[in-house]
Amino acid sequence: MGTKNIGLRNIEVADTKISSIDGQRGRLIYRGYDILDLTKNSNFEETCYLLLYDELPTASSLTKFKNSLSSASVIPKQMQNNMKNWRKDADPMDMLQAFVAALAGYYDEEFSDKNSSYARAINLIAKIPVIIANWNRIRNNLDVIESDPNLNHAENFLYMLTGEKPDNDISKIFDVCLVLHADHSFNASTFTARQVASTRAHMYSAASAAIGALSGELHGGANYEVMKMLLDIESEDRVELWIKKCLKENGKIMGMGHAVYKTYDPRAQVLKELSKKLGKKTNEPWFDITQKVEKTTIKEIKKTKCLDIYPNVDLYSASIYYMLNIPVDLNTPIFAISRVAGWTAHIIEEKFAEAAPKPALYRPKATYVGKYCGPHGCKYKTLDLRTK
Amino acid sequence: MGTKNIGLRNIEVADTKISSIDGQRGRLIYRGYDILDLTKNSNFEETCYLLLYDELPTASSLTKFKNSLSSASVIPKQMQNNMKNWRKDADPMDMLQAFVAALAGYYDEEFSDKNSSYARAINLIAKIPVIIANWNRIRNNLDVIESDPNLNHAENFLYMLTGEKPDNDISKIFDVCLVLHADHSFNASTFTARQVASTRAHMYSAASAAIGALSGELHGGANYEVMKMLLDIESEDRVELWIKKCLKENGKIMGMGHAVYKTYDPRAQVLKELSKKLGKKTNEPWFDITQKVEKTTIKEIKKTKCLDIYPNVDLYSASIYYMLNIPVDLNTPIFAISRVAGWTAHIIEEKFAEAAPKPALYRPKATYVGKYCGPHGCKYKTLDLRTK
Repeated sequence: MGTKNIGLRNIEVADTKISSIDGQRGRLIYRGYDILDLTKNSNFEETCYLLLYDELPTASSLTKFKNSLSSASVIPKQMQNNMKNWRKDADPMDMLQAFVAALAGYYDEEFSDKNSSYARAINLIAKIPVIIANWNRIRNNLDVIESDPNLNHAENFLYMLTGEKPDNDISKIFDVCLVLHADHSFNASTFTARQVASTRAHMYSAASAAIGALSGELHGGANYEVMKMLLDIESEDRVELWIKKCLKENGKIMGMGHAVYKTYDPRAQVLKELSKKLGKKTNEPWFDITQKVEKTTIKEIKKTKCLDIYPNVDLYSASIYYMLNIPVDLNTPIFAISRVAGWTAHIIEEKFAEAAPKPALYRPKATYVGKYCGPHGCKYKTLDLRTK
Repeated sequence: MGTKNIGLRNIEVADTKISSIDGQRGRLIYRGYDILDLTKNSNFEETCYLLLYDELPTASSLTKFKNSLSSASVIPKQMQNNMKNWRKDADPMDMLQAFVAALAGYYDEEFSDKNSSYARAINLIAKIPVIIANWNRIRNNLDVIESDPNLNHAENFLYMLTGEKPDNDISKIFDVCLVLHADHSFNASTFTARQVASTRAHMYSAASAAIGALSGELHGGANYEVMKMLLDIESEDRVELWIKKCLKENGKIMGMGHAVYKTYDPRAQVLKELSKKLGKKTNEPWFDITQKVEKTTIKEIKKTKCLDIYPNVDLYSASIYYMLNIPVDLNTPIFAISRVAGWTAHIIEEKFAEAAPKPALYRPKATYVGKYCGPHGCKYKTLDLRTK
């Protein structure tokens, strides 16, 4: 016997104006706008603005917002020095979680009003890519590259990572990836961020906790696991055998299936096209292998379980980042570069919701199924009376 | 219109064998044992063992456990160097959240089996006091004091903090405080830890996120807020005026009232006695002021709202830590020194529950109450068409 609310799957925990998922029809809406529209017409900076302020910016608000991001795209020298003291083989998500928490030690804007929360949100959106790019340079014993205010957010990250300005095709593809990952309602990391914020902890603290949740392989960590799978598969002709074996042993394939979508994940659709485009441009096999993974998994799951399964957001993003020459273990940190837009919007909504029902400290119940020794508890035995 | 599950107050999210709260009768049980029994007869090390392993240790298991804690009570020199680079006025909770996340960058035991989770739990219980004590020395430009394997956990923290071995009265009082704070079912930080662990993120990541949740003033941060209140009140004769004014302005008094207990919090009962004892020993006014705060708040809330209100765990702990000469802003970090025992036990339960219903990734729903512009979303306007 026990609780029926495992994983809270059907429990509505709060109101939100930020995003909406239609799992039946495979649609994702940010603040009223369909993400397919946004990937075609918008860009990451505009999407951040939309998520934070509930409307698309005017030309002048967008310029102001971009300038704020640019001036915040820097981290203190002290933080770079601290990075130099880290183990070079540390997991970049651990590094990111620690340094985002540490931001609070350097930036101490007042917490309690909404405007300072927006300043902190901009700070986080701007600094997370800097932390990741700086760390990647430092762990490879390379000089850190400062951000370039003439580049957009997507270009700037790739530039800080490599020292080279990416061509337009590449930076557009990366920009679309950022737009697609920016929010997804109450996923595990966003719910974590809201929960930490519900105690009135500050935004850096909540964002750092969200990074922790994102790192798990059942959440953002999946795009790293997908790439490890593709590298292990190696070539298209090995896909079928590999997938059958993996399904037999583990019952699941990373990047396939989603708790909410009962049809094709709209993000996976866009990413599949981008991966295909990059496959042609780079002449690498990763799109073809991924597509075969998709087809084989669909066929096998249909055959063995009589179920329909679809790719999720992680299946095709892995090959894209790989063909963009991004180190494999930065796949999940890149997810954070984008999702921080959603986290910060949700933290602000959690803290400053204007209409009832207002959010409250999340403090669920648990069903106690442990030792019961009567109304006064188990009798305490002193150490000398205890034996196995 | 909106969701009815605000704060998840009546939602049972999982089964647990770790602790149970009887809010009506004011009782708290760890693994079957009443905490009043444990504070009288047990100690913090034994309580940690009980929470982690679901039974009181035999003499030899306890010795082994204590030895493991002792050998893990050290942090790498590199971490101490990193601390030296921090802003001296950083909030110790921010520092702690960052450095606990960073532990993963130094200790990389395999994550997937239960035994290594126990090793990681011991590492966290042992290292959190070291991080806090080291940081307090470093921010005051004092030499770090290494832990002493001949001291128990409570003594050792006070020793690393001050360089002096505390007398038996003092260390016993601090030990009881640690026992009392060690677990409290699905409170906000523990739920955060479980949630991060539910994505299969590792234990350092989950514990760091929990520290973030603990820092909020609606959770662990409250014991810091209580002390700020007492210092502002200054003397017993100023209590009544201060409380009336505060209730009029904010409607609430820190340290009073609890979401779960509808009677006297059993922890507050014990802490009140300890505070009284310390008040006599030190001849300081903080117990008397706190007691007057309690009485006045009870009287005023009864008069104005016709409600009964009781002190929570934070009301009397604040004065105790102050009389133990612990810096005020370490009140909440001390909460973490104790609560990490519960967090790690819950993370292990979340990851390795043996009986159904097994926990799953927490992925609640939200009620979308934002912009709706028909089944295809709002029409995207290009930048030149947008005006306020």
